[in-house]
Amino acid sequence: MDIKSYLKVQAEFINEKLDDFIPKGVPKELFDAMEYSLKAGGKRLRPILVLESAKAAGKKSVDDILDIAIATEFIHTYSLIHDDLPAMDNDELRRGKPTCHIVFGEAMAILAGDGLQSYAFELISKNRAVSPEKLLRVINVLSHGTGIYGMVAGQAADILHEKEGSFNDIEFIHIHKTAKFIQSCCQIGAILANATQEQERALSDYGLYIGIAFQIQDDILDEIGDEVKLGKKVRKDREREKLTYPLVYGIEGSRAKAREYVEKAISSIEILENRKILEELARFIINREV
Amino acid sequence: MDIKSYLKVQAEFINEKLDDFIPKGVPKELFDAMEYSLKAGGKRLRPILVLESAKAAGKKSVDDILDIAIATEFIHTYSLIHDDLPAMDNDELRRGKPTCHIVFGEAMAILAGDGLQSYAFELISKNRAVSPEKLLRVINVLSHGTGIYGMVAGQAADILHEKEGSFNDIEFIHIHKTAKFIQSCCQIGAILANATQEQERALSDYGLYIGIAFQIQDDILDEIGDEVKLGKKVRKDREREKLTYPLVYGIEGSRAKAREYVEKAISSIEILENRKILEELARFIINREV
Repeated sequence: MDIKSYLKVQAEFINEKLDDFIPKGVPKELFDAMEYSLKAGGKRLRPILVLESAKAAGKKSVDDILDIAIATEFIHTYSLIHDDLPAMDNDELRRGKPTCHIVFGEAMAILAGDGLQSYAFELISKNRAVSPEKLLRVINVLSHGTGIYGMVAGQAADILHEKEGSFNDIEFIHIHKTAKFIQSCCQIGAILANATQEQERALSDYGLYIGIAFQIQDDILDEIGDEVKLGKKVRKDREREKLTYPLVYGIEGSRAKAREYVEKAISSIEILENRKILEELARFIINREV
Repeated sequence: MDIKSYLKVQAEFINEKLDDFIPKGVPKELFDAMEYSLKAGGKRLRPILVLESAKAAGKKSVDDILDIAIATEFIHTYSLIHDDLPAMDNDELRRGKPTCHIVFGEAMAILAGDGLQSYAFELISKNRAVSPEKLLRVINVLSHGTGIYGMVAGQAADILHEKEGSFNDIEFIHIHKTAKFIQSCCQIGAILANATQEQERALSDYGLYIGIAFQIQDDILDEIGDEVKLGKKVRKDREREKLTYPLVYGIEGSRAKAREYVEKAISSIEILENRKILEELARFIINREV
């Protein structure tokens, strides 16, 4: 099976499991808003990376850590809901569907995002298969990578640097907005697999590098991607005068940068035995069309 | 020292400690926005309740759990920032100062709130004095009480029931929006004090009851409070046709209800030896003017 098909099968697996973990409750509108955005599709890259990293570090069965993988998708979904808000990127369409605030209103979208974040940590804290020590490390790594020293900082920088910024700023934005979260997912997989320090470091580095490459490819797709395949408007970054890789390095320069990061990612995991899928995944990230 | 002075001293103590835990970093605007709202004053009731509950359950020194107490104030502050947003309660003033989005803009306020939430969990996960088992329970109780089965659900119900709602709805809103978080704080204090199951239950019940009484008093103050003392406009609930206790039970009826809950709170902790401060605190909650 080629990597594209493999990732599709994995995404379908995550989608099935997601159903088991979608919370139910009242008020109905809040839970509907969370479910709507959780089920709005996506590549499920972050939970897949948790599981594949764990496997690469030698974990045989991932049945006991599915909830933790799903929790990363909860965090990702919260960040998308808030990013799409009128005060942020003001997007009305994502993956071909109206965004959360268009369907449920801004107030419910803000709360759905807040709730998805807290529920991600609640979900991890409820796991009974993994030791408390490890779960606490998972929470530490996840909150760090997605919080004020990671994703939230990157999103803030992204908004602040609309219309201006330097080469350093674009590095900061890409590393923080996207790469640190993806790095966390790979590191979490390592922690859950009882990886050695060296293995954990390898997977953490791998995650950081593919995360940067992933965001560069996102910027490229926004510039030259297919609107129908992407399910959203393209060239929105340019319209908003966002600081992107193509703006700073041009399309070909950006592609070269992305390839460089993918090679660095692949080198990082040379010490791992089961690294084949992660290698192919790294290469696929910069060849994807969606 | 009377309870009002005692609480003031405790709030000053929390304010001092808060300074040690306010995170620094870039982008500056994000960290400034968080700091601005964290330092905008307030009663610091939630961290005080963590510490006082721990003391009531027999914990001698609270030096090793200050970070956890402070984390509850981070969560409280995030909820206030998001509540004040134009799409939510649209408040321009809180505690006599312009709200976060007025000073830093809506995007930065959304992100400051998101970041304060994740940093609360990061802070708890970094504690090295308490056992991982207990920290994980703290995270579980806190995420549950402030998330989709607690505060976030209550806030959603509050917004959905503007202009209409039943007696049941007002109970749901008060319990979820306010009481469950306060309950969590008291339960967290118990957990951190190695309380027995019976003691933990007592403090948890106490927290739930004073939480409801606290919100009833909030509703009463919105109706008949002193605008200058409160540092915000009064009668905003009425203007927005919010579902409040006074609307359903009248002022005197609401006062009677609040007294009832305070008595229930006090009965709940009869089994605790060091209960004097918590008893006085419960009574003070419905006599406060701010």
